[in-house]
Amino acid sequence: MAEPHTLDYRSTGVDLDAAERVMEGLKSLVASTRDENTLSTPGQFGGLYAVPGDVSNPILVSSTDGVGTKVKVAFESGRHGTVGQDLVNHCVDDILVQGARPLFFLDYIGCGAMDESIVPEVVAGVAMGCKENGCALLGGETAEMPEFYAKNEYDLAGFIVGIVERDRILDGSRVRAGDVLIGLGSTGLHTNGYTLARKIVFESMGLSIDDEFPESGRSVADVLLDVHRSYLPVLSDALGAGRLRGLAHITGGGIPGNLPRTLGSALGAVIDLTSWEVPDVFRILEEAGGVARGEMLRVFNMGVGMIAMVAPEDVDVVLASLGQADGSTDVQAFIIGEVEAGEGVRFA
Amino acid sequence: MAEPHTLDYRSTGVDLDAAERVMEGLKSLVASTRDENTLSTPGQFGGLYAVPGDVSNPILVSSTDGVGTKVKVAFESGRHGTVGQDLVNHCVDDILVQGARPLFFLDYIGCGAMDESIVPEVVAGVAMGCKENGCALLGGETAEMPEFYAKNEYDLAGFIVGIVERDRILDGSRVRAGDVLIGLGSTGLHTNGYTLARKIVFESMGLSIDDEFPESGRSVADVLLDVHRSYLPVLSDALGAGRLRGLAHITGGGIPGNLPRTLGSALGAVIDLTSWEVPDVFRILEEAGGVARGEMLRVFNMGVGMIAMVAPEDVDVVLASLGQADGSTDVQAFIIGEVEAGEGVRFA
Repeated sequence: MAEPHTLDYRSTGVDLDAAERVMEGLKSLVASTRDENTLSTPGQFGGLYAVPGDVSNPILVSSTDGVGTKVKVAFESGRHGTVGQDLVNHCVDDILVQGARPLFFLDYIGCGAMDESIVPEVVAGVAMGCKENGCALLGGETAEMPEFYAKNEYDLAGFIVGIVERDRILDGSRVRAGDVLIGLGSTGLHTNGYTLARKIVFESMGLSIDDEFPESGRSVADVLLDVHRSYLPVLSDALGAGRLRGLAHITGGGIPGNLPRTLGSALGAVIDLTSWEVPDVFRILEEAGGVARGEMLRVFNMGVGMIAMVAPEDVDVVLASLGQADGSTDVQAFIIGEVEAGEGVRFA
Repeated sequence: MAEPHTLDYRSTGVDLDAAERVMEGLKSLVASTRDENTLSTPGQFGGLYAVPGDVSNPILVSSTDGVGTKVKVAFESGRHGTVGQDLVNHCVDDILVQGARPLFFLDYIGCGAMDESIVPEVVAGVAMGCKENGCALLGGETAEMPEFYAKNEYDLAGFIVGIVERDRILDGSRVRAGDVLIGLGSTGLHTNGYTLARKIVFESMGLSIDDEFPESGRSVADVLLDVHRSYLPVLSDALGAGRLRGLAHITGGGIPGNLPRTLGSALGAVIDLTSWEVPDVFRILEEAGGVARGEMLRVFNMGVGMIAMVAPEDVDVVLASLGQADGSTDVQAFIIGEVEAGEGVRFA
């Protein structure tokens, strides 16, 4: 056995006092997302949230996700304020496809030794995302592991719980052949395909984070950090009116990987690839990387971040309802195809 | 702009097909934890769980946590089957202290390129932990990020949702000066202090992962991988009978960092450090690392993983009830001190 020598926790790179100071600052941010059902205060072991009384047969809908290597863009640009919004919006969209509205959210940050400003900046984004979606930030964990994560690097996982009335669950069983597929515009890459996108941008295209992204008038950082859209505000009217038969959140795997997840086993879909204009960012990545169209469709959302399945007779009223819930009108909607008997997704 | 060249997602290190094969294997494990309230099947965007009907005023209790650098011990030993149990048990204990029983759990695994066996081994541990605690594994996310995590390395975050009757919440308000502190034995380091412990074991003591840990007859890996105990089975009788006034889960920060979290602001505690025998593993780490006793108490659980606050007249019946719920009798209980007027934790 080697000669013993004195160690304390600080010398291993974990500064518990500094971590405590950071956590104090976060408490007020977290508190700003409280609602009438939030019963706990920050710092308790678990967060307490009352099941809302306005749901007669309450089903909890829960999901966990991260933002993938989009965090690398945050590291490279030093801009940490929006990945938290990405995280929340991604999770909100994941439970929205089953008809749920969000109740509360928790975040996990695994990180190396951190400049004191970074974690609060990340959590501020999480808190803002929660506020925008009417969701309480009920708790979180920041695990500082300096021998595991590089200095000022972190991974981010989010966990959401929402609620839906049992007879309003969207589980694919309402979808019928002939239903119209309405594609809703994405804001960019959302949170998928960043490993490939970064390889193309920084290697194939030879760009740096502050260079202009071609044809955009914006920096690479601006374009790659565009915030994942929450479709909750634009879809809540149609959802509340029971006019959505199904929803698919277009994440990793793209349209072919995600649309079948909400179709019954005897249903497929046909998509007209000419029915919407693929945004410049995807076209430029495709060309610069020499990526096949089929691969692009499997990795990226290609401009369609959410697909709604709607009965033909409801299409006009659903289209009219989009973008009105929060006064915004910036979400583009395209009729991109229809549900058909069969299996899988055909691109026509 | 550099010469474009062909890329697909696989060449970036992300193999979607292999990932899909792994996920198929996980589905049956996850399915084995289903209960009568689990409404979703694996692969849906969100997990569906019905709020149990046997709680008249249901409060959800939620927490997120990781297992810290205990995962490094899994990497070093190549034994990935128990960190998932650690993760679940840690989260179960976190919500137990507010009186909640677990409903469902989700896991997030951020990882590098992985040998195909590792992720299923980790998730098998998560599923086993869920089964042992009567908790549905409702979903999870495996995010493969080869440029961010090293090959065969991963971080692990868990999210738990439990339930408690509103008038049975343990929030510190029931605790009174004079209440007796019953310490429940830990199984080892649980999930805290691994950064310091590993530094002492591998640097100060110069041991390797397969060497014998002194005075234990077991390997370093065995000792450091001892599974975090779930106190749910041993405490459920006393909890159900309303005989626990408060609970504190002794995690990062040790007794002084965690016990005050469940005491009111006008209450403190006095602990008799001679009232239990500090297990060998802590004594050996303390001596070999030359760590001050105060620092040891702040980093490690020192043999007490959970502290129950009990009215003096209930102590005997609570002690008698421990370890009977699941037939196990291996949890040691010590009367370690009492609640007193004042603030903070005094060690006497």
